[in-house]
Amino acid sequence: MAGPITRVDGGTITTARGFRAGGTYVGIKTYSEDKMDMGMLLSDTPCSVAAVFTKSTLVSPSVTLNRETLRAGAPVRGLVVNSGIANAGVGEQGYIDAKEMAAVAAAGLGVKPAEVLVFSTGVIGVELPMTLIKKGVDEIQLAEDGGNSLARAMMTTDTRTKEAGVSVNLGGAEINICGVAKGSGMIHPNMATMLCFVATDAAVEQDFMRAILPDIADNTLNMLDIDGDTSTNDSLVVLANGAAGNSPISGGSADAEVFKEALTDVLVQLTRQLARDGEGATRLLVAEVRGAKNTADARLAAKTIASSLLIKSAVYGADPNWGRLIMALGRCGAETVESKIDLYINGVCIMEGGRPVPFHRDAVVALMRGDEVTFGVNLNLSDGQATAWGCDLTEEYVVINSAYTT
Amino acid sequence: MAGPITRVDGGTITTARGFRAGGTYVGIKTYSEDKMDMGMLLSDTPCSVAAVFTKSTLVSPSVTLNRETLRAGAPVRGLVVNSGIANAGVGEQGYIDAKEMAAVAAAGLGVKPAEVLVFSTGVIGVELPMTLIKKGVDEIQLAEDGGNSLARAMMTTDTRTKEAGVSVNLGGAEINICGVAKGSGMIHPNMATMLCFVATDAAVEQDFMRAILPDIADNTLNMLDIDGDTSTNDSLVVLANGAAGNSPISGGSADAEVFKEALTDVLVQLTRQLARDGEGATRLLVAEVRGAKNTADARLAAKTIASSLLIKSAVYGADPNWGRLIMALGRCGAETVESKIDLYINGVCIMEGGRPVPFHRDAVVALMRGDEVTFGVNLNLSDGQATAWGCDLTEEYVVINSAYTT
Repeated sequence: MAGPITRVDGGTITTARGFRAGGTYVGIKTYSEDKMDMGMLLSDTPCSVAAVFTKSTLVSPSVTLNRETLRAGAPVRGLVVNSGIANAGVGEQGYIDAKEMAAVAAAGLGVKPAEVLVFSTGVIGVELPMTLIKKGVDEIQLAEDGGNSLARAMMTTDTRTKEAGVSVNLGGAEINICGVAKGSGMIHPNMATMLCFVATDAAVEQDFMRAILPDIADNTLNMLDIDGDTSTNDSLVVLANGAAGNSPISGGSADAEVFKEALTDVLVQLTRQLARDGEGATRLLVAEVRGAKNTADARLAAKTIASSLLIKSAVYGADPNWGRLIMALGRCGAETVESKIDLYINGVCIMEGGRPVPFHRDAVVALMRGDEVTFGVNLNLSDGQATAWGCDLTEEYVVINSAYTT
Repeated sequence: MAGPITRVDGGTITTARGFRAGGTYVGIKTYSEDKMDMGMLLSDTPCSVAAVFTKSTLVSPSVTLNRETLRAGAPVRGLVVNSGIANAGVGEQGYIDAKEMAAVAAAGLGVKPAEVLVFSTGVIGVELPMTLIKKGVDEIQLAEDGGNSLARAMMTTDTRTKEAGVSVNLGGAEINICGVAKGSGMIHPNMATMLCFVATDAAVEQDFMRAILPDIADNTLNMLDIDGDTSTNDSLVVLANGAAGNSPISGGSADAEVFKEALTDVLVQLTRQLARDGEGATRLLVAEVRGAKNTADARLAAKTIASSLLIKSAVYGADPNWGRLIMALGRCGAETVESKIDLYINGVCIMEGGRPVPFHRDAVVALMRGDEVTFGVNLNLSDGQATAWGCDLTEEYVVINSAYTT
């Protein structure tokens, strides 16, 4: 019997046992106090591994190298990440540098290059400064409480770290699933400029983990939208080292369902943190769609609402301009029947059966001025449902992205 | 033999012979000096007609009514339009009001209701004030130089009218093709909050006109993006009354090709005017893609560039951040081979064969500070090509759309 899934207060990636992490500042990003731009993660023992990468056709060679490593199928021991430069759009040198970064990090971690994944995030079109990368590997001090440093080292325009963890008792063994993420801009369904690393001390069969991860990503990180753009580098990776001593989790077991639920919860927490810290964001936007013809339609509708510039602008202005919801539902590609649509803003029904319901405008405006605006949609066609997360669009987004220089 | 296609200086929809138009202010929009919110167009004689409407699944009942009118196939004499209220998202009343608006306008114009098309643009979810609509029909004075009034009456957040016209000699007859449009926000490929009316005094067979219009729209208005949103009301309509006395243009003739080219030119002019006047825009963004695998891929690539928030922000900041072009090409869905890509900013080559080309940054920034930024992309795969138009993203867009109240 599995116990309840509990969110770990202050949980971060190293809350999972047998993982150490660290970060440092080497000078890839411009200096400011407490800033970091390189990090590493090491498991004491080999890990089963699963990953989901960007759907872009023009990817960073670091992603290409990781795909090769994953395909080889051998256990992974750790990862290295830099922020500030994406190692993308630099021609053949990018792959050479990614290989070199893995080799250098492996030497520093005392493992083989094929056991290390490499990640870069930042500006496209600039080569990695390999001298700084080597310096970083030498400098990083791994620690059992180093998760926060790793989270800081990944940040680009993020204003705060994204960390989360859950624990659950599986047949007497307490397992932890914990992660860190970075995002902020260039974020959209289909894995945007987003890096997310999850570590678990559970023993999990690799095939099972690889089988479930794409769908979990589709329900969480791929339902996140900041600005509709998708980067060359997006990656979600899950490492499982088995330090918890549980019986290895495989498909079809009761534990498998609990593990999926717990992993989903960690990723929902990180997705919400990413959305809330979107570039220039002042509040979280949640789109909950139910009653769609199927899951695909529900995802289309939810994502379209969360990514509409007009809706995001209305959220910023705390304006219950629900006509824009109708516009978004109409263009999203999902099946809709106008006379069946119910709409809610933060729980207040504003349209029922396709007809506007008189509502107390000032009260709804007041609700929308909070730190979270939830649009509820019931298409009343069937049982498809999905949730998407985003943020408001503010002048600050434009300022950040018109000044952010190559 | 056809003469050259000449742009008519100061051309507007009533430059086409046999068309009269007018506009008035009835009080649907808040008052300001010289503001208009209702307009009408009348042809002296019956017109062949073709139209393209929004691809939204939730459309204004005005669009539904027009579709019925078009399907019936009878000649059309004119149209009526109001701005300020979209007649969408109001339940069954919307269709009743659209029918009533056609009937009232027809009575005013002295024609039959089935000969009048109806258009509304503005806020969704508010019923049409029929008393004001009736007042407008009574007040509007049609004039042979009334095209500018009609153009003004269509405006919502537009800051200026969109008007254009061309003339060409077809077998001794001088024909004019002239139009007006409105747009500004909620604009995206697939016919966004955009109304575009074109009148020609050429005689054009209706079947031919209906056959060519979708493709011309796909190359012009559907390649326009302001903010990725699509409205419930978008419409492009072309009326041809034959006042020029030419032999009716039908498919397969030499005149047919000239007519297509001339109509395309009018719509390109209007598309560029719409893009340049996007909400908050300070400059025009043009994305020219060639060498794509096919036209569909070229359109995907061009549209993705013109609609990327990060690229639009970079255009605002006059920042030659070409990494964002790579990002957009990677996510657009078109086939790409990184090592073949050439990129240009206002004619300056910045990437060749997938490798960055050193360029004089200050010179490119100076070019980008002009009123038009053109991104050239050669995918070097085949001969697919397309052009998309957009504008920069500015703080002003956010201000307009967070304050624009229902």
